[in-house]
Amino acid sequence: MVGYAFMGRVHSQAWRSVAAVFDVPRPAMAVLSGRSAERTAEAADTLGWAAVETDWKRLIERDDVQIVDICTPGDSHAEIAIAALAAGKHVICEKPLANTVAEAEAMTAAAKEAAARGVRSMVAFNYRRVPAIALARRFVAEGRLGEIRHVRAQYLQDWIVDPEFPLVWRLQKDKAGSGALGDIGAHIIDTAQFIVGRNLTGVTALTETFVKERPLAEGSSGLVGQGGGGEKGEVTVDDAALFIGRFEGGALASFEATRFATGRKNALRIEINGSAGSLSFDFEAMNELWFYDAAESDAGFRRVLVTESDHPYVGAWWPPGHGLGYEHTFVHEVKDFLEAIAAGTDPTPSFEDGLQVQRVLAAVEESAAAGSRFTSVED
Amino acid sequence: MVGYAFMGRVHSQAWRSVAAVFDVPRPAMAVLSGRSAERTAEAADTLGWAAVETDWKRLIERDDVQIVDICTPGDSHAEIAIAALAAGKHVICEKPLANTVAEAEAMTAAAKEAAARGVRSMVAFNYRRVPAIALARRFVAEGRLGEIRHVRAQYLQDWIVDPEFPLVWRLQKDKAGSGALGDIGAHIIDTAQFIVGRNLTGVTALTETFVKERPLAEGSSGLVGQGGGGEKGEVTVDDAALFIGRFEGGALASFEATRFATGRKNALRIEINGSAGSLSFDFEAMNELWFYDAAESDAGFRRVLVTESDHPYVGAWWPPGHGLGYEHTFVHEVKDFLEAIAAGTDPTPSFEDGLQVQRVLAAVEESAAAGSRFTSVED
Amino acid sequence: MVGYAFMGRVHSQAWRSVAAVFDVPRPAMAVLSGRSAERTAEAADTLGWAAVETDWKRLIERDDVQIVDICTPGDSHAEIAIAALAAGKHVICEKPLANTVAEAEAMTAAAKEAAARGVRSMVAFNYRRVPAIALARRFVAEGRLGEIRHVRAQYLQDWIVDPEFPLVWRLQKDKAGSGALGDIGAHIIDTAQFIVGRNLTGVTALTETFVKERPLAEGSSGLVGQGGGGEKGEVTVDDAALFIGRFEGGALASFEATRFATGRKNALRIEINGSAGSLSFDFEAMNELWFYDAAESDAGFRRVLVTESDHPYVGAWWPPGHGLGYEHTFVHEVKDFLEAIAAGTDPTPSFEDGLQVQRVLAAVEESAAAGSRFTSVED
Amino acid sequence: MVGYAFMGRVHSQAWRSVAAVFDVPRPAMAVLSGRSAERTAEAADTLGWAAVETDWKRLIERDDVQIVDICTPGDSHAEIAIAALAAGKHVICEKPLANTVAEAEAMTAAAKEAAARGVRSMVAFNYRRVPAIALARRFVAEGRLGEIRHVRAQYLQDWIVDPEFPLVWRLQKDKAGSGALGDIGAHIIDTAQFIVGRNLTGVTALTETFVKERPLAEGSSGLVGQGGGGEKGEVTVDDAALFIGRFEGGALASFEATRFATGRKNALRIEINGSAGSLSFDFEAMNELWFYDAAESDAGFRRVLVTESDHPYVGAWWPPGHGLGYEHTFVHEVKDFLEAIAAGTDPTPSFEDGLQVQRVLAAVEESAAAGSRFTSVED
Repeated sequence: MVGYAFMGRVHSQAWRSVAAVFDVPRPAMAVLSGRSAERTAEAADTLGWAAVETDWKRLIERDDVQIVDICTPGDSHAEIAIAALAAGKHVICEKPLANTVAEAEAMTAAAKEAAARGVRSMVAFNYRRVPAIALARRFVAEGRLGEIRHVRAQYLQDWIVDPEFPLVWRLQKDKAGSGALGDIGAHIIDTAQFIVGRNLTGVTALTETFVKERPLAEGSSGLVGQGGGGEKGEVTVDDAALFIGRFEGGALASFEATRFATGRKNALRIEINGSAGSLSFDFEAMNELWFYDAAESDAGFRRVLVTESDHPYVGAWWPPGHGLGYEHTFVHEVKDFLEAIAAGTDPTPSFEDGLQVQRVLAAVEESAAAGSRFTSVED
Repeated sequence: MVGYAFMGRVHSQAWRSVAAVFDVPRPAMAVLSGRSAERTAEAADTLGWAAVETDWKRLIERDDVQIVDICTPGDSHAEIAIAALAAGKHVICEKPLANTVAEAEAMTAAAKEAAARGVRSMVAFNYRRVPAIALARRFVAEGRLGEIRHVRAQYLQDWIVDPEFPLVWRLQKDKAGSGALGDIGAHIIDTAQFIVGRNLTGVTALTETFVKERPLAEGSSGLVGQGGGGEKGEVTVDDAALFIGRFEGGALASFEATRFATGRKNALRIEINGSAGSLSFDFEAMNELWFYDAAESDAGFRRVLVTESDHPYVGAWWPPGHGLGYEHTFVHEVKDFLEAIAAGTDPTPSFEDGLQVQRVLAAVEESAAAGSRFTSVED
Repeated sequence: MVGYAFMGRVHSQAWRSVAAVFDVPRPAMAVLSGRSAERTAEAADTLGWAAVETDWKRLIERDDVQIVDICTPGDSHAEIAIAALAAGKHVICEKPLANTVAEAEAMTAAAKEAAARGVRSMVAFNYRRVPAIALARRFVAEGRLGEIRHVRAQYLQDWIVDPEFPLVWRLQKDKAGSGALGDIGAHIIDTAQFIVGRNLTGVTALTETFVKERPLAEGSSGLVGQGGGGEKGEVTVDDAALFIGRFEGGALASFEATRFATGRKNALRIEINGSAGSLSFDFEAMNELWFYDAAESDAGFRRVLVTESDHPYVGAWWPPGHGLGYEHTFVHEVKDFLEAIAAGTDPTPSFEDGLQVQRVLAAVEESAAAGSRFTSVED
Repeated sequence: MVGYAFMGRVHSQAWRSVAAVFDVPRPAMAVLSGRSAERTAEAADTLGWAAVETDWKRLIERDDVQIVDICTPGDSHAEIAIAALAAGKHVICEKPLANTVAEAEAMTAAAKEAAARGVRSMVAFNYRRVPAIALARRFVAEGRLGEIRHVRAQYLQDWIVDPEFPLVWRLQKDKAGSGALGDIGAHIIDTAQFIVGRNLTGVTALTETFVKERPLAEGSSGLVGQGGGGEKGEVTVDDAALFIGRFEGGALASFEATRFATGRKNALRIEINGSAGSLSFDFEAMNELWFYDAAESDAGFRRVLVTESDHPYVGAWWPPGHGLGYEHTFVHEVKDFLEAIAAGTDPTPSFEDGLQVQRVLAAVEESAAAGSRFTSVED
């Protein structure tokens, strides 16, 4: 695994737990890679990795490594993933797949070439593995919503409302690619397209950076050392991105990603209206899926507690009503990845799926830069 | 009162109740006007009007009429309102103020001229009089939300999801002006601007008509008589209208009005995020306002049951927890109107406020027609 | 109508509105009776009554009175109701029917005798007329819940949590009979029995008076004039009453009525579990009924917005999603009463139903006084 | 660890995860004990235990075992725990502590004796370690609720509503001690007393067994082999247990535990009303605590998402809004246990706390057997 910050920690939990819950081989947690020898060793000890490397290139050379899990910021994804695939390692890569469409295209090409050699790759859109979201997809696929008319998706957070919050790497375009758009907007784009089974075809967008300068962050960026003494740096990414648009098949989209929704902590919300029914979901209550079936008498949105044994992923865990948490989406993710490797099939979401999301992100940025002009998502 | 359909019925309830609850003079319910003598007489009897006229021009000539309440479709608002004001009658007019900006401008001019003579006018955006919405405005005005960053408003209904629902007047452009946009979109535009205390300055929009033809409706339109035998007519208004945009002061807007949100019956929903707090409201639970105060420890969205004696309008009604319903918004509306007349002041929302909403509607239509180009709201 | 306080006000709203909404004859609001000539005249003017009397005995002698509506405290119900029935007036009487079982028995006997003469009577348990509660009863009657196992009912208020709240008549046993038990406990007993269609057969109970002395209230009791200067009087009723028990047919009951549930304003809550489904209701969201149908796949409690035209009482009002409020339960009550009079049938709940509730209240008090011993409800 | 069924699985998850998240020594998962050699070996492999024993007596003799985790049915707790403590092993024991007060007393005596030797013991009431419940206790301790007046607790499940559900060990008195009462009633008794910081002093109770006979279960009881062919056996425990009662300090209690609440999957619900505020919690939404602060203007129950870094246990996990699940309560439990061992202090809840809960259970059974007579909880 490359990287041991937030994503590295939660991925480690997943690798550690997966074989105790699902019927997959127990993965050996071989090597953790990070730039600082000392801090990487400390993290490996805490998180349960057997060895450490300070250069990811050494990690992908090792014979005891079959899978490379990329948990670094987006600017390094392409280089690491392409090298790992070339070295014959299966790759699971955090989202967004890359910081640009060009990088994502290169990665997708590498993934296709590797797949021909039996080397698998997956982009880690973990929210697909929320049981309620997997159930939502099942409902749409079964036709229980009829023809889809509206997809309303929001990803609302509030962790940078305070203008004194520092200029961490996620607020720097060179590291993160974009702001709320790529970080959390990417999730709702992928999740919505996953549930509906269709892609966005065009968008009209607005983006905004509410707080344009922030205190330099200590230790979290290349800016470190320049800072101190209350110096500020420019925020080079969006704080919020909104777009409306159209899906294949004619459904209307209304999307919003923001880090300025005071009081919303991790509100990935999706509401879908079809001719026969509707769905509603909010990750802040992740074990619930709300479903409206227009065919029933005395209809109403019903709160399906997605903890039954016949719900996706859930049967392997606890009895009904004993809910899951955020980390379990990653357990499901690596379980599906391990199963695909064992079965010799290509897991989803593929790098190509990640590329498609990247193209939507690019269309949003292009539209926002061009007076909100309606912009097609390029194939 | 002119008109006795849905709006006429609920306005009648308001005129009948207002003086028993609020300290205003009891209005005499003098004359009801409608085209059909028989049906108007029947409605007058049921709703409690003392006399009837079959021509609204006669109604506004009568000496026993001081107030004219216009509850007709939008295409007749301008003519009736201007004539009534000219005749020295105070006018309360249903929304949207008119079907075009030009009509609304003429009405606004007439209202200003009448106001100089002490004749009052008001446009009936009743949702301003929901206690929870009036309380929301109070919170914003008091600064409890800080600087406003996001305004997210939706008006979701589902009454025409069925493609066999007939082509009633609300689905005809010549009668209704527009579809979901003017009917319910107008409400969220006014309500949001009312709460925030600032206006929308520009929008980028999409509109859609999902069901393009519908069975001709019997008795409800000029098309009657041509129909029967399963004939269909063209739907000439939007089924759904979405736009994103900007408010004065920089807040971002995300708005959606639709009649195709299966399972949402009258979901006028508004969520506002500010630097110090947030608000959330859904008319389907109209006695509740959700408020997040970022300053408090262990903060969370709290469900304020807006039924306390110090909440707007509520003190005159029942004890805490004994909620109000839809019709009471109209009681509050006529109470405020009667108080303004008695006090010799101009009530709000004024025709000018109605005109401003009309200009937003026009900008939405213009943007949607021009490839979603960002379109400024004209002054 | 006798009495013009809270109940008098809301009953007046009902009499005024009923004929505009439902197809019943418009009742003439003839005479209001109260002890103080001046204040009764003022109330009659505000509430729309044509005449006043200062002695209820004069009111029931009048020829222009066909219906007597009793909105006084419980200690006067028996005398007024029995006299009015004897005088051939139809009687609607506020709940609880009386302050003792003996009074209630006498009233019931009088009602039976009067019914033989075509004179009708009803006890005003208005919550039966909440559309959601009437729908709940329909669900149970249709067998959609299967065999009932649990009935969990709470009526939670908080208006006397403050120990400085004064000693109003509702806190005096001689006026009110009991405290939370008779005032709001009576409502959940009636409502639960109404929905389930079966009666409570026995209970084991606890009651408590948390604040045993309170400031004397000015103008609200016979204690007035003795008070002032911070004097206090004894609270002679319960602040809270809890009981568990059994229904006919074997369902278990858990009931609680309290005025000390801080933050709960008028939370009449009922949850019913049957072998095939469950229901849940809270008056603080009175337009919603939650229903769980165990037979459906991906089951969940669904929020039925009880505003559809095929829901009880609702068709006469507004379109779906345009909710009703507290006062409308009274409109439904007088509508049913007027219809029964017109049809020559006995309306429900009858005085006998009120007597049965009184017997449950008596059993609760008896059990609480006897070390919570299980106490049968006497027939 | 002794036992590898539901509790054994979730405890294994906890032992595996604890050191990666909290700053405690990584526990070596040494030995799993179970009666069947084959099935125990299989479970040990899946769950990550290094060795197996088929006799728990051998397990407690082993030198490589410092901690014994008892996950068996209640009838074996006393023997195993007392032996393990005698052997100098720290003991964590599943709840209820025992099947009888006498057993619990013996265990408590053994625990006290062991504590004098530095050997620690804890009863595994895991719900104390739900962050929201730990936060609730903090609120009460800080006085934010004022004087407590009402404690309303329910534990509602529905897994045996179907009369064809078989006669598993949890439905047999000799194995389980009691039914809903000891299984889930014990949890709400402990949780409520934990939050309030005071004990129940007396109760009046009802219990019921709705389905008195069930099909014999294969493989799950001593009855196995007698069964087959549709034979049935008697249910010897309660399906539901209800009681009302009093706490030290005068608060009123209303408690209910049932396995017949159709649609409620794991609804451990607690509502507490104090003179200054109220709390409400439902485990089906375990990351939320609802808090009402009567002192604030425009008060309302607020939904505190208990995922902030200053909330109990939460700081070690993920960012705000990224919720935890059921299993994490066990991680917190073993973390506290390991910390107490390391610090040389006695962890809570102690066996004595478990004994007190056992005495409440006994009082409930005694009251229910004696016509619901009010029964004191013995010291």
